Amino acid sequence: MTAETLDTPRGGEMVDSDFLKQLAAVIRAEDSYGQWDDKTDADIMAEFILTKDERREIPIIGDPDPDVMWRVGKFYDAVGLLIEKRSGCMASQMQKMSHEGFGRIVLIAGKLVVVSKHLRDIHRFGFETWAKLAEAGDKMVTSAVDTIDKYPEAARG
Amino acid sequence: MTAETLDTPRGGEMVDSDFLKQLAAVIRAEDSYGQWDDKTDADIMAEFILTKDERREIPIIGDPDPDVMWRVGKFYDAVGLLIEKRSGCMASQMQKMSHEGFGRIVLIAGKLVVVSKHLRDIHRFGFETWAKLAEAGDKMVTSAVDTIDKYPEAARG
Repeated sequence: MTAETLDTPRGGEMVDSDFLKQLAAVIRAEDSYGQWDDKTDADIMAEFILTKDERREIPIIGDPDPDVMWRVGKFYDAVGLLIEKRSGCMASQMQKMSHEGFGRIVLIAGKLVVVSKHLRDIHRFGFETWAKLAEAGDKMVTSAVDTIDKYPEAARG
Repeated sequence: MTAETLDTPRGGEMVDSDFLKQLAAVIRAEDSYGQWDDKTDADIMAEFILTKDERREIPIIGDPDPDVMWRVGKFYDAVGLLIEKRSGCMASQMQKMSHEGFGRIVLIAGKLVVVSKHLRDIHRFGFETWAKLAEAGDKMVTSAVDTIDKYPEAARG
């Protein structure tokens, strides 16, 4: 039993997901010189995984790390791009973060708020498994596309 | 003629405007100890007026002054509160400012973006006259209420 647990890679099994592919592409877009060409998607997204133990060790006092804010930004960039692919509506991101790691992120298409997420403990932004990361992104995209379908005029307004 | 010009108060004649009353109220809300009770609305809003000469003297290099950001925030707080009074929809503010004084401000009611303003040269945020300040606020409120009337479901969604 112990051996089995130890054998499981960090983040569990990689899953096949449009969102994870989009997130990897967003990160690779910053790699102008192809230095990460040898790395797998799991390598370049490794920091989005946060095990239970790792999570506990991160203090939630003080300003969130710029690295965390970068990851949060990339996560919502990927959500926005996938929304655009599926709906044709460009979604732009706005963040409002306090210094204590509380805040709100919205994605806006036209006059429509297609994603609105209140964040807390942003210091601990991360997902236990690839499956959970993929699910969080895919769910947000699906819900955003549903919102656009419901208010198409506002989304294009 | 010269005498007449000199006699005109800074900002021109005060005008009667719901927006200016709301803005003054927003500012007075911070005066917990009533220290500004003796001041007129024109006194407490004086910094929203920027004459042509004053504008020219403000450099637009570097980070905008915290005072400017405070004024921008109060301006949009007043817009938001007046939108709420007229439509019943609460509008919350989100800003996205770069370090160079460029940015975007939105007011969001439900799922609807009721005000969206791209800002530049925020260092020079201000209005030549009370009439122009009032007009800028009133126009934004009217347009926001029109948007809510057009997409009532999204605004309450």
